[in-house]
Amino acid sequence: MLVSALLTSVLINSGLCVLLWALYSSLRKRPDNYRVYAPRLLAECNSRAIDTFRLERLLSTPSWVARAWQTSEEELLSSAGLDAVVFRRLITFSLRVITVAGVIGVFILLPVNFSGDQLHDVDFANLTSNSLDIFTISNVKDGSNRLWVHFGAVYVVTIFTCFLLYNEFKYVSSKRISYFLTSKPQPGQFTILVRSVPVSRCGSVSDSVERFFREYHPNTYLSHVVIRRTSKVRHLVNDGKRMYRRLIDLRKERCAVKSQHGGLCGLFRRQSDIVNDYERKLEELEENVRLGQSEASLAGEEVRAAFVSFKTRYGATIAIRMQQVDDPTHWVTEAAPEPHDVYWPFFSESFIRRWVSQLVVLVAYISITLLFLIPVVIVQGLTNLSQLQAWLPPLKDFLKEPFVHQVITGYLPSLILLFFLWLIPHIMKFLSSAQGYISHSEIIRSACNKFLWFTIWNVYFGNVLSGSVFNQIYTFLEPANVPSRLAVAVPAQASFFIAYVVTSGWTSTSIELFQLFPLFLRIVTKPFKNAAGVIKVPAFRYHAIIPRVLFFGLLGITYFFLAPLILPFLFVYFCLGYIIYTNQFINVYSPKYDTAGKFWPIVHNSMIFSLLLMHAIAVGIFTLKKISLASSLLFPLPIVTLIFNSYCRKRFLPNFNAYSAETLIEKDRKDLNNASTAEFFNKLSSAYQDPALLPVRYSAAPDEETAPLLSSTETEGDGIS
Amino acid sequence: MLVSALLTSVLINSGLCVLLWALYSSLRKRPDNYRVYAPRLLAECNSRAIDTFRLERLLSTPSWVARAWQTSEEELLSSAGLDAVVFRRLITFSLRVITVAGVIGVFILLPVNFSGDQLHDVDFANLTSNSLDIFTISNVKDGSNRLWVHFGAVYVVTIFTCFLLYNEFKYVSSKRISYFLTSKPQPGQFTILVRSVPVSRCGSVSDSVERFFREYHPNTYLSHVVIRRTSKVRHLVNDGKRMYRRLIDLRKERCAVKSQHGGLCGLFRRQSDIVNDYERKLEELEENVRLGQSEASLAGEEVRAAFVSFKTRYGATIAIRMQQVDDPTHWVTEAAPEPHDVYWPFFSESFIRRWVSQLVVLVAYISITLLFLIPVVIVQGLTNLSQLQAWLPPLKDFLKEPFVHQVITGYLPSLILLFFLWLIPHIMKFLSSAQGYISHSEIIRSACNKFLWFTIWNVYFGNVLSGSVFNQIYTFLEPANVPSRLAVAVPAQASFFIAYVVTSGWTSTSIELFQLFPLFLRIVTKPFKNAAGVIKVPAFRYHAIIPRVLFFGLLGITYFFLAPLILPFLFVYFCLGYIIYTNQFINVYSPKYDTAGKFWPIVHNSMIFSLLLMHAIAVGIFTLKKISLASSLLFPLPIVTLIFNSYCRKRFLPNFNAYSAETLIEKDRKDLNNASTAEFFNKLSSAYQDPALLPVRYSAAPDEETAPLLSSTETEGDGIS
Repeated sequence: MLVSALLTSVLINSGLCVLLWALYSSLRKRPDNYRVYAPRLLAECNSRAIDTFRLERLLSTPSWVARAWQTSEEELLSSAGLDAVVFRRLITFSLRVITVAGVIGVFILLPVNFSGDQLHDVDFANLTSNSLDIFTISNVKDGSNRLWVHFGAVYVVTIFTCFLLYNEFKYVSSKRISYFLTSKPQPGQFTILVRSVPVSRCGSVSDSVERFFREYHPNTYLSHVVIRRTSKVRHLVNDGKRMYRRLIDLRKERCAVKSQHGGLCGLFRRQSDIVNDYERKLEELEENVRLGQSEASLAGEEVRAAFVSFKTRYGATIAIRMQQVDDPTHWVTEAAPEPHDVYWPFFSESFIRRWVSQLVVLVAYISITLLFLIPVVIVQGLTNLSQLQAWLPPLKDFLKEPFVHQVITGYLPSLILLFFLWLIPHIMKFLSSAQGYISHSEIIRSACNKFLWFTIWNVYFGNVLSGSVFNQIYTFLEPANVPSRLAVAVPAQASFFIAYVVTSGWTSTSIELFQLFPLFLRIVTKPFKNAAGVIKVPAFRYHAIIPRVLFFGLLGITYFFLAPLILPFLFVYFCLGYIIYTNQFINVYSPKYDTAGKFWPIVHNSMIFSLLLMHAIAVGIFTLKKISLASSLLFPLPIVTLIFNSYCRKRFLPNFNAYSAETLIEKDRKDLNNASTAEFFNKLSSAYQDPALLPVRYSAAPDEETAPLLSSTETEGDGIS
Repeated sequence: MLVSALLTSVLINSGLCVLLWALYSSLRKRPDNYRVYAPRLLAECNSRAIDTFRLERLLSTPSWVARAWQTSEEELLSSAGLDAVVFRRLITFSLRVITVAGVIGVFILLPVNFSGDQLHDVDFANLTSNSLDIFTISNVKDGSNRLWVHFGAVYVVTIFTCFLLYNEFKYVSSKRISYFLTSKPQPGQFTILVRSVPVSRCGSVSDSVERFFREYHPNTYLSHVVIRRTSKVRHLVNDGKRMYRRLIDLRKERCAVKSQHGGLCGLFRRQSDIVNDYERKLEELEENVRLGQSEASLAGEEVRAAFVSFKTRYGATIAIRMQQVDDPTHWVTEAAPEPHDVYWPFFSESFIRRWVSQLVVLVAYISITLLFLIPVVIVQGLTNLSQLQAWLPPLKDFLKEPFVHQVITGYLPSLILLFFLWLIPHIMKFLSSAQGYISHSEIIRSACNKFLWFTIWNVYFGNVLSGSVFNQIYTFLEPANVPSRLAVAVPAQASFFIAYVVTSGWTSTSIELFQLFPLFLRIVTKPFKNAAGVIKVPAFRYHAIIPRVLFFGLLGITYFFLAPLILPFLFVYFCLGYIIYTNQFINVYSPKYDTAGKFWPIVHNSMIFSLLLMHAIAVGIFTLKKISLASSLLFPLPIVTLIFNSYCRKRFLPNFNAYSAETLIEKDRKDLNNASTAEFFNKLSSAYQDPALLPVRYSAAPDEETAPLLSSTETEGDGIS
């Protein structure tokens, strides 16, 4: 790539970003767009019945950038939860690494590279006509002593990154504990989920659970709720919900008809008939729901799993940590999620079924990751021009137009790729849910991990090794050749990835700010919706965004000494990210459930992997550049990094899986003196009641009263199938 | 190798075995040799003060083979512990696998191989002059459909082995639990070891431990013993012990002098002077010991670690399982070994030091395993004839003798190899102890694992790949080429390994029966020892023997379809092993400490590895033999085996690390109703008292009374350095 081409790309994308920012800054002030740009604030105002005047003043201020910049960690924590804090720390962490690497890269390595003369002579008169390669390590002469500068840079950046990683891990770990210590008593803290409950032939699951925990946890056992097969009832309840919504709309229409066309009796009567008809149907449905509920309450519909609540957090944790019986496939315990975080559809009570589904998901994940490019290429091939002409004969002439021709051949393939890439986080989320996680938050966390490795494999290695997929795998089947293979392939893609940072990084972040898709949806659906409907506050898609940010971190770490020119662009990307995501956390997204910082170990692993990959590339490069002493002296670095990682895992990871006895007991003791504890325990026993089994009362309800009830059960999914 | 050469080798070794058996059968009856052939029985008789008449009758019976054969598992369990049972089950398991593989191999595969004609024609007239290769898979024609018989055999043997593995794992696991349930209360069950105790500046470790466990385990905490730096005192105590032994000998001599040379006053007086001198020195030493003990009891000599005892086994297990404080490198808990099983020399209290020593040991282990052959080859080279002649000029003429020449060039290199191989289990044991294990039993278990992989690497791959060590490593850096590399190399070594089974397997087992080395030692030292000394009962060297047996299992599984001729020899080996080891468990060895069956997971892993290796070889062979369909159809087999292994680990392994809540609580409840429990708890608090801090009383003791005291502290090692 030529310097001029890069400059063009930067100019275009900067222009686009500036345009989107300007549009956002003006559009966000219009109350019409509050639902897109500040749904979270709007919902808060609605629920607290605050006048929208304050909101307007808040939003109309032009200094939203300053506000996002000044938002402290405490504010973010209180408004968006620990996960948002962890996400922002990921960005600041990346910023710090990129800054240090950038200073070294731009002020030391770049001049060294530029003054090398391995490649053809530099055209100083017309700088932009040079290839970007003159700024990369490829321009340093083979065997030149200047390469020791790069060697030193690799060491410095590794040590600095490890130092930061240690501090961050420590910080997030302590933050997690203090978050727990300051939290209110929550049902999930006192409850465990037990599966594979063995049942005697005549007894019920409930009896079995009761007997077991009374026997072996007599001092701490409180109560339990057996899980039931309620998928049928849940479907009925959902049908009822839909019908009820329609009914409300119809009633409104009837009122409107009445007031507008007071006299037109016919129209009014027809409307009334329809409403009556719906009311009758709804009553029937309600009767069915009630029947279904009483059926589901019978012992026969019990699933061999239960939520068991304890009197103390410590008691619950002991029950999770200890193997209950000699056969570890029975009475399998795990921490229960918070009630609103429970995810039902793939619930399976047996050890074997969960294990098999884990294996199946693993195989599916590996196949999707390895073979992702194959369907993409096939679909891209299917949509080439002659194919389209054959399929759509009427459009033949239209397709022959030069402009259309250009658009289709130029943009369709990359649109298809984008579509597939957009699909992947959803697929990963589906895979994770099929894997048997019981909570939304764990599913998101697992999907985040899956998508990260998918991205690294398909975007990084897919581009770097740019052969067929099987070729890539083959490279990794010969580990000894990996460094030399990478040393040739990675620097060759430097200019591609620089352009990638600018196009994909900058633009996607600005589009996130502009909320392009929700805005488009809002404009399109506006005529069909009444303004007073329920405000939908979206949740932040951690599983899609974190891997992307981490991927740019990977690019920064692996390319900083190869092509330092990438660093300023990454710096801009992370600055943009800091401002924009903070702003979105304050205004747009609202946390539905949180993992209390469990994303950090993923970040840590990804960074360690980036460092190791960088070392492998460096070893390969120095061998290729014929200073083998440097590559030999680099060997300790990955080993020390791995040892460092192992220490960090031992030191901090346990706190991300469970809390310590000290913390739990102290938290329990604090509660003892608390007046509200008794009330909490009263509620606890019914906290995990299946929402499908709660009493229904649509028909009796007047107009909007049951709306909260409806929305509260909305996130629960489709029941156990 | 020719058939005739194998026959010769078999004949020679069979002769040797028969000779050793015959010698054993006759020598064991002589009371002189009881200390070698039945030290265990002798010690039991002594301790119970039984007349040796019964012992003589027991040992003089010629049918020791029948007795060993008939020994039931219960007898073995009660006399030699669960580890011996596990060891014998390993042999019966191998026997079963070898029997099934042998039936398939000898009656189906061998005829198929023999009737192939890939190699030169078979000389039927003179069978023994044929190469052994005509019995191997190499003799089957490339692409022949007969290879499908081998394919089927691979499947059948894999399925059968997995089936057996599952049952054995299940059996041993249940045996382990019932062993625990029927055991008497033991200090180790109620006690944990806690390290890295944080200490405030003014407080002592003891206070810190007391405060912590009273705070967070108030209901179950019983008592604690802080570990102290006692290496100095321990050295003094050991000196005292030595001096005391010498003193007893001197006193005896004096008595002898007095009775024999009643009149020779001078001699008697000189003896008396020496005795008095020793007594004075001993008194001084005792004073020093007492001083040292009181010094060590001061707070300053406390180590930041303690044995903490609990009122229930469940309480102790909870303390082990739970992370105690937020920093997992503090208050690190683990199960305490039984008091007599504690191993001091490498005790380190801090998390970091243990972790570093683990890393160092890991590096040392890998280097020793990978580079083992280098020092061997060097030393072998140093001892070649001309070198020896140069070093030892006086022996020049002697070394030139043809016989000496032959012996040195023929046997010295293999003797050196044998010496190094004999050294390895000791080195592995040392490495494991340096790794930071606190108990002898864990050290033995870990050394067993280490030696197993050492053997597989150096004996199996060392012979099979028979290039330089680096060449071997290089093979495994290209995983894709491993099967094809193995397919060429492994069958080529078939005849070597058949001979190896006969020479190393048969003979070593028979030498074990004959107790060659102890017998030799006994004969040599007999004139210098008095007959009434303490009887030393050796402990079975699990860490040296189990890997050897497993290695023969590996040979059987990987070679059964390549060269089925190996199977009859292995069958004989395992039969010998069954009889001989059972006999030795009854007569010779006595369990000093046991792991309660923790060796089984090592066996399981090794067998799974054997199966996977066999599959890799089979894939390579079928590709080489040009039926690639068969090698494709083999691919599911290793995957299914791995899945099977993962299931077994999930299902059974947890029981090898800890007992379940159910088991522990039930065992605790049984004790509640037991009268002897109170007494046990009284003893418990002093069970982990450092033996070096017990009061000494040599000088005051008359003659032999303190002997039990001495021997009880003998196994404790050298104290904390």
